Amino acid sequence: MKIGVFDSGVGGLTVLRALLEKIPGADYLYLGDTARLPYGAKSRATVARYATSSAKFLVGEGAEYLVIACNTASALALDAIRDAVPVPVLGVVETGAHAAADHSKTRDVLVIATAATVESHAYAAACAERNLRSIEKACPLLVPLVEEGWVDHPVTAEVLRIYVSELLDQAQDAALHADTLVLGCTHYPLLRAQIERAVPPSLCVIDSAEATADQVAEVLNAVPPRSVTPRVRFFATDSVARFRALGSRFLGQPIDSVQLVDLGG
Amino acid sequence: MKIGVFDSGVGGLTVLRALLEKIPGADYLYLGDTARLPYGAKSRATVARYATSSAKFLVGEGAEYLVIACNTASALALDAIRDAVPVPVLGVVETGAHAAADHSKTRDVLVIATAATVESHAYAAACAERNLRSIEKACPLLVPLVEEGWVDHPVTAEVLRIYVSELLDQAQDAALHADTLVLGCTHYPLLRAQIERAVPPSLCVIDSAEATADQVAEVLNAVPPRSVTPRVRFFATDSVARFRALGSRFLGQPIDSVQLVDLGG
Repeated sequence: MKIGVFDSGVGGLTVLRALLEKIPGADYLYLGDTARLPYGAKSRATVARYATSSAKFLVGEGAEYLVIACNTASALALDAIRDAVPVPVLGVVETGAHAAADHSKTRDVLVIATAATVESHAYAAACAERNLRSIEKACPLLVPLVEEGWVDHPVTAEVLRIYVSELLDQAQDAALHADTLVLGCTHYPLLRAQIERAVPPSLCVIDSAEATADQVAEVLNAVPPRSVTPRVRFFATDSVARFRALGSRFLGQPIDSVQLVDLGG
Repeated sequence: MKIGVFDSGVGGLTVLRALLEKIPGADYLYLGDTARLPYGAKSRATVARYATSSAKFLVGEGAEYLVIACNTASALALDAIRDAVPVPVLGVVETGAHAAADHSKTRDVLVIATAATVESHAYAAACAERNLRSIEKACPLLVPLVEEGWVDHPVTAEVLRIYVSELLDQAQDAALHADTLVLGCTHYPLLRAQIERAVPPSLCVIDSAEATADQVAEVLNAVPPRSVTPRVRFFATDSVARFRALGSRFLGQPIDSVQLVDLGG
């Protein structure tokens, strides 16, 4: 089984990392569309065009199952991708909402994400479909803090304290009794320990990278474990050096070789 | 006199703000190529293509003088822009280095900028041309902090304290005796007071937005002051609403009307 993982950048490597742990018997293709990132500020039509060309590339390279590890593409282009390729497609927004629905007893859920994801209200919609009430909060400083490498850093702890306190105020104003917090950005799993320290113990933190890997594992339960290391190929549409340097932190292991691909404008 | 000001986003509005103060007798056109930002991660050829099409648009709208208030475009595409349009063109990198050369007695200069600008080493080259030694430091958290609106905020003060201390350590290691610090990013003028508090009093802070306006004023000293308010037209290539909301903070006054323009892919 060959699983294709797609993101606009390196963030989706946290999803690949979780997949490698849960489904070590599969082979993997990872594409970061780094030349065209960030998707967040672009229109639905543009994101759909970029994401479908990326999905087709991965299927052309042999992917038999696609994981869309990009929140913006999952929010804006999942149907377009499903129409464009003949293989099953799973997106991180629905897996995050699905895991929240599984966990929450109060049916009230909090979501933190980038400004673009929050503005799309994709998590709110996915939660509403599952009869969950939700509040989404944009945390625009978290991605730059992770990319700066300030993961275990007092500044990050202080930023998280402020964001969490604003989020809990919003929840109180809306009379939500949330018991679940969804990490709605693929960068946030790197801050999971810090986020868990910053929130009240009554809040269960759902890491959507892990939730996605769990759901792929459930669907593909027939993939037999193997004794050999899974084979992973990496593709990027811009600066292979930057992908390797930054990506290794997200994957949690060195990235040896990245192939540059041109998907056009 | 009609002055065109170009940036990939809203940051260049700090340059427009300084121009409006120094040359109130001119009319202005401002273009933010927001659909194609950030330029920082893109190749020289792509940045040149985007910047020349933007410059031509402004000249087509009547600009008789162009200010490139975008560090990446100034660093990578100034010659291409000069070749593409028949009007004088000034870029923020050269004006910043020029002002530093004017101020520095020790001939040693520090520059803070985004990661992309630092990686281009455009300031180092512009400083070397003026017989200045320089150290450039990337401060990737400052733009997101400004865009989050955390200008006068303890987190920003702490981030600045850390960046400045790392920069001074680098200067010491290189045996530089710097007396001048160039703000090499159009977002940083919003943090000027905080930056001045964070650096030793022996360092003179050069705001490249102001330095640019000074130099344009010097060149265009024939523009007569007028009794009427300068006329300013704003153009953006994506989300006019976001440009107005974010841009007003950079301009220091409300932006009433922004025209959406399509410059192609």
